[in-house]
This record gives sequence, structure tokens and C-alpha cells, in this order.
Amino acid sequence: MDLQFKVLKKSNRNMSRLGEFTTKWGVSKTPMFMPVGTQATVKTLNPEELKDAGANVVLSNTYHLWLRPGEDIVKKAGGLHQFMNYKNGPMLTDSGGFQVFSLAEKKNIKEEGVYFKSHIDGSNLFLSPEKSIEIQNKLGADIIMSFDECPPYPATYEYMKNSVERTLRWAKRGKEVHSNAEQALFGIVQGGEFEDLRRYSAEETVKIGFDGYSVGGAAVGETKEVQYKEVEYATKYLPEDKVRYLMGVGDPIDLIEGTMRGIDIFDCVAPTRIARHGNAYTRNGKINLRNQKYKEDFTPVEENCDCYACKNFTKAYIRHLLISEEVLGQRLLSIHNIRFLTRLMEDIRENIETDTLEEFRDDFKEKYYK
Amino acid sequence: MDLQFKVLKKSNRNMSRLGEFTTKWGVSKTPMFMPVGTQATVKTLNPEELKDAGANVVLSNTYHLWLRPGEDIVKKAGGLHQFMNYKNGPMLTDSGGFQVFSLAEKKNIKEEGVYFKSHIDGSNLFLSPEKSIEIQNKLGADIIMSFDECPPYPATYEYMKNSVERTLRWAKRGKEVHSNAEQALFGIVQGGEFEDLRRYSAEETVKIGFDGYSVGGAAVGETKEVQYKEVEYATKYLPEDKVRYLMGVGDPIDLIEGTMRGIDIFDCVAPTRIARHGNAYTRNGKINLRNQKYKEDFTPVEENCDCYACKNFTKAYIRHLLISEEVLGQRLLSIHNIRFLTRLMEDIRENIETDTLEEFRDDFKEKYYK
Repeated sequence: MDLQFKVLKKSNRNMSRLGEFTTKWGVSKTPMFMPVGTQATVKTLNPEELKDAGANVVLSNTYHLWLRPGEDIVKKAGGLHQFMNYKNGPMLTDSGGFQVFSLAEKKNIKEEGVYFKSHIDGSNLFLSPEKSIEIQNKLGADIIMSFDECPPYPATYEYMKNSVERTLRWAKRGKEVHSNAEQALFGIVQGGEFEDLRRYSAEETVKIGFDGYSVGGAAVGETKEVQYKEVEYATKYLPEDKVRYLMGVGDPIDLIEGTMRGIDIFDCVAPTRIARHGNAYTRNGKINLRNQKYKEDFTPVEENCDCYACKNFTKAYIRHLLISEEVLGQRLLSIHNIRFLTRLMEDIRENIETDTLEEFRDDFKEKYYK
Repeated sequence: MDLQFKVLKKSNRNMSRLGEFTTKWGVSKTPMFMPVGTQATVKTLNPEELKDAGANVVLSNTYHLWLRPGEDIVKKAGGLHQFMNYKNGPMLTDSGGFQVFSLAEKKNIKEEGVYFKSHIDGSNLFLSPEKSIEIQNKLGADIIMSFDECPPYPATYEYMKNSVERTLRWAKRGKEVHSNAEQALFGIVQGGEFEDLRRYSAEETVKIGFDGYSVGGAAVGETKEVQYKEVEYATKYLPEDKVRYLMGVGDPIDLIEGTMRGIDIFDCVAPTRIARHGNAYTRNGKINLRNQKYKEDFTPVEENCDCYACKNFTKAYIRHLLISEEVLGQRLLSIHNIRFLTRLMEDIRENIETDTLEEFRDDFKEKYYK
């Protein structure tokens, strides 16, 4: 599927760009942040809460849905959107590659694909480029991803070179079997911290030809400085007229820095994961609501935040819920954290409009890390 | 506070009555079912979901709030309604008596009150009629309860007689210290399965004089036949013009049978507790959504149910959420189960209007237990 991506405005000072793409769910504005609904649900939230928190595209994980409930059940339900009743925007499924490399046990990478054991019941499983695309075709998300190897960090140049080559062969194989014309298929640029490998991976992936391009293997343990370089090494060689997606990156400052390096889409489990541990983003830095000092703090998590949690509840109440292990506490912080990131993306888009993203970044950093 | 309870219609065939009472939150229709928000939250749900599920009065537990976050914090927040942002109806706090007897460890019942150990950290605690009312005054619910002993079941006649006498003395002491004129104070009828003790407890409690009357110590292990008798033994001697509340009873059939014996209000943790184990009420009996047979069942939990879960999601999806340990599954079933009971109460009220509650009960039982 052609995503009909349009670049509306480009910065004269950095690689940031304002864009939009259109699917049957309407117009999606970029740069954007996608919340992650690993098992066909963004943890603790319902679809209306996602909408209210400013979410548009929601990501779900092929690996998890393949194991439970199985792609055939999702297909019978009418696809992912129908299954989880998400109607507020497009959906994207990843390829399962990252989960195989991070969750699965005893993996054995062969040319044909990866043999490994299920993290749920230890059963023997096999995932290949063809299998990943076949599963994603059935899941029916609007955007699907090529099956890649997410290499360990750090990896030697030699390892990374072989891995990049294999990921390219896998990308071709996946594209060949992609059979659902309603789904956009993205290629993935790997290459770790090596500039020439990132360039090679980007150029060769573009030659194969995809509806959009991802930068993978970032934020896997390297420093932020290295991460930003990795992004630059890749985006420089990606076509202007295709969406660029930085996978698994969601630290607030990285959303700004990534945008300045030409990224259009980000995703990360962080906003919901840190919520479950009592953490909330604020423009003045992360805070932990379990802290004793919020016991009698009857102000919202963040002044001026328009999210449901901040409009209706106090820090003292949310702290009570967290300490008492009540799910509503995690829900409220998940809503706040997602809204924090979607608001940040709104600000980022505004600052691309006025080409003031660098000043915005400096101001953001000063307050966030003070 | 005078609840301004009005009986609108009485059955000619049984003790059921249609009524309403008025608080600053508006008119509350009886008979009604109250969901339980133990720790100032009905588990997994937010206030809007309670409203949508047809809830009006919400109960919260004095014992739990006393331990966490403490009644002073709730008071500083502006009271329970403000603290948890519940604005859709009145709130009720129990006395803590039941929790002391069911949760607390090493309890020692004395005339002055009960010495026991916290179920959270084992610390030494003491709760008395005066202390319970003082805490409830600070929590600020619209309806508060006298501190009673909830005796073990079975108990000897001798034990129960002494317990009833002590509970009466405690009721007097509590009434004397009740200092918040905006809160209605209810008395509690105990007496177990003994007809004369229930009568004695009811008559003596009425002599002390309360804004409403509860039947306590029911559904503590006795058969349903005995439970219904216990209710009858009490309600016969309670004034027509005061609200009657059967504590801790929420099995669907018990709501009908209790209403037929003159009860106006019920509460129970069951709808949310069974939801957390994957169970849902339906008019055709309870079902467990974890069951394999719902794997590809793309129909709602209950046809014709107007709850959020049934209008938007399928059994197959809810089963997937439960099996994958996703909180949204518990949320959806909690909503459905509360709505099931509030719909049942709506039907009960309609059938009092037409004086057909007995036929309704027979029909309900036939389908529910078939």
C-alpha cells in the first residue's frame, strides 16, 4: 500500500520535517510517537483512553500475537483493529525479530531463519522472513515490518557485516511473499555503530524498495551520542519522500534529537512500563509517585497537562493507589505518560513549523535535566 | 443527616418496596446494588466507568482507608468523593468491624473495642465504636455505619446473645460521638440465625434510633435458606420509613430474594472479584471466559447487554486478555458484572412497580441455574 506520505515543511537548520500520511483511518501527522500494545492491548488502557491521550498509530507485536492468541484467530476476528476495537488510527506490527532476539531462549540463527524456544512454554519455534510476513498479513495491520536480525550490542564489525548482509537477503525474501496489497511494508536499516555498514544497509534496502524505512538496532545499550550518530548514518541515505521510523526509541530527549536527524515515527514501551513502576514524565524531569513527599500533595502530576489523570486526580491519590497496588494508579500514569509524549510531539511539530526546534530542544533539556 | 427516604410503592404479595432517597448528589433509587471500592477505588475502574455501569452509591472500607492512606489525608483532600473524584452519587463507608473480624490477625475483643494486628505489617491496632465513627467522620462519606461485631459462623446462642448485647452498647457509644451532621448514621442488626436475637437486636437498635438500618452477619457461611430467614427475622421489626441495607450480599438471586424480604440496598465485592478470575454473570448463569470454548467466539459476553464491554469487545478478545494476563480483561469483566447487577436491580424495580417480582424471580432462577 502506498502510504501517500507528504513532506509539508523541511527545516533549513537540521533534518527535521513536518509530514503526514494517509490511510483508510485518515491523516496521520508526523513526527509522531506510537504507543505499544504488545499483546493487542496497550497495557491497562482501552481504545478510548488511547485516543484521548493523543495516540494515533498503535504498534502491536507479531511475536506475541503469533504465540497468543495466534494469527488465525486475529484474522477470523477481522484483523487487529477489529479484534481489539481500535478505530482511532492505523496500526503497525513489528516483524517479531526483536522479540526473538531479546525474549526467546536458545536461539539458533540460520540462513533460512531463526530456531528458538518459546518464552512462554519452551516449545520449539521457527521464524523466517516468509513466516513473519505471512503472520503479519493475517494480523492485518496497516504497516508491517521486514524480518531482520537485531544484532547484540556491542558486536564486532565482522559480525555486523554478515548480519547486515543476511538482513538484506531476508528483506528481499519477505518482500517477495508479501501478499496483502492493503498493507505497507517497511524495510529496516541495521549496521550498528558502523557508518559504512549503516550506509550500505540503507542504500541496499532502498534498492529493494519499500513503502517506508526503519532504523533498527538503536538504543540497545550504546550511549546517546552513538545512538544519534547511528540515526544520522542511516537517514542521510534514505529517500526524502518515504516515512522514516526509529524503532524502540522513546526517551523524551531522543524524540527531539531523532526528529532533528530526519525521523518521522518513534515507538517505545517506556511510557506504560515506567508507569507500572510509579514513574511519570514531567517537563521538569521524571518523578516517582510512590515517593513519600507526595503523600499530601493534592496537585496534579503535572500542572498544565490536559490528560485525564491530571485533569481529575491528585498526586496524593495516585500515590495511594500505587502503594495499595491498585491498577487504577498504573492506568492513570500510563495515560499521563502517553499524553506527555504525544504533547511533546505536538510541540516538536510546532517548532518545525517555525524552525525553532534547536531552541526548543535546549530549553527542554535545561528543564528536564535540571 | 436525614436521608429523606420515601417509599414510592409497596408490593401486596411480599415485603418488596420501591423507594428513593435524596442526598446532595441527587436522587438514589432503591432497591439498589452498591459496588465496593475497598481502597477508595473500585478495583481496576475509574469513576466514569462506574457511572456508565449504572452505579450510584459506592461503598468504601474504613479499615483499609484508616491503614492507607489514613483518614487525615482523605480529609485534607476534601473527603472521599474529592479524593477519588467520585461525583456520580453518594458514598458509604462501613465501620471496619467486618474487616477486623475477617482480615486482622490475633484479635482480642474487649468491651472497650477490639485489639488486633494489621494485616499489612502486623503492627498493633485498636478499633472501638468511637474510633470507627471518628475515622468515618473524617472520611466524609454520606452514609456511615455503626461499629459492630460480626460474629463467627456458626456461633452458639450464648455467644451470639453476648455479642448482640455488646454490639448494642457499641451502637449507642458510636451514636453519641457522631459529630458530622451531614452524614447519615446506620445501625446494624446482628443475631445470626436466631429469630429471637435478630428481633431483639432489631428492636433495640431501632430504640437507639438511626437514619437507616443494616442487616449484618448474613452470607457468612450459612445456607441460602437460613440467610433469607435471617433477613426476614430482622426486616419485620425495622421501621417502614427507613432505608434497609443487607451488608455483603450480592449473589444475583439473593438480590431478588432480599428485595422480597424488604431490603433496599445491597453491596458485595463479588462482581469485581469474580471478574479478576475471569468470571462473568449472564442471565444464563455464570461463565468463565478463560474457557477454551471461547477462543474463537466473536460474540459479546452477553447478548443484549448494554455495557461498554459487551458493546465493544468479543469473548475471544477478552479470553485472549485474560490468558495473556492483561489488565484490560479484568476491567472489561468488572464493568460487565457491575452492569449485570445494576440492570438486575432495574428489572427488580420494574417488577415491584407491576408487583410481579415472584414471577420474575422464578423466571430468573430457571434460566440462571439451568
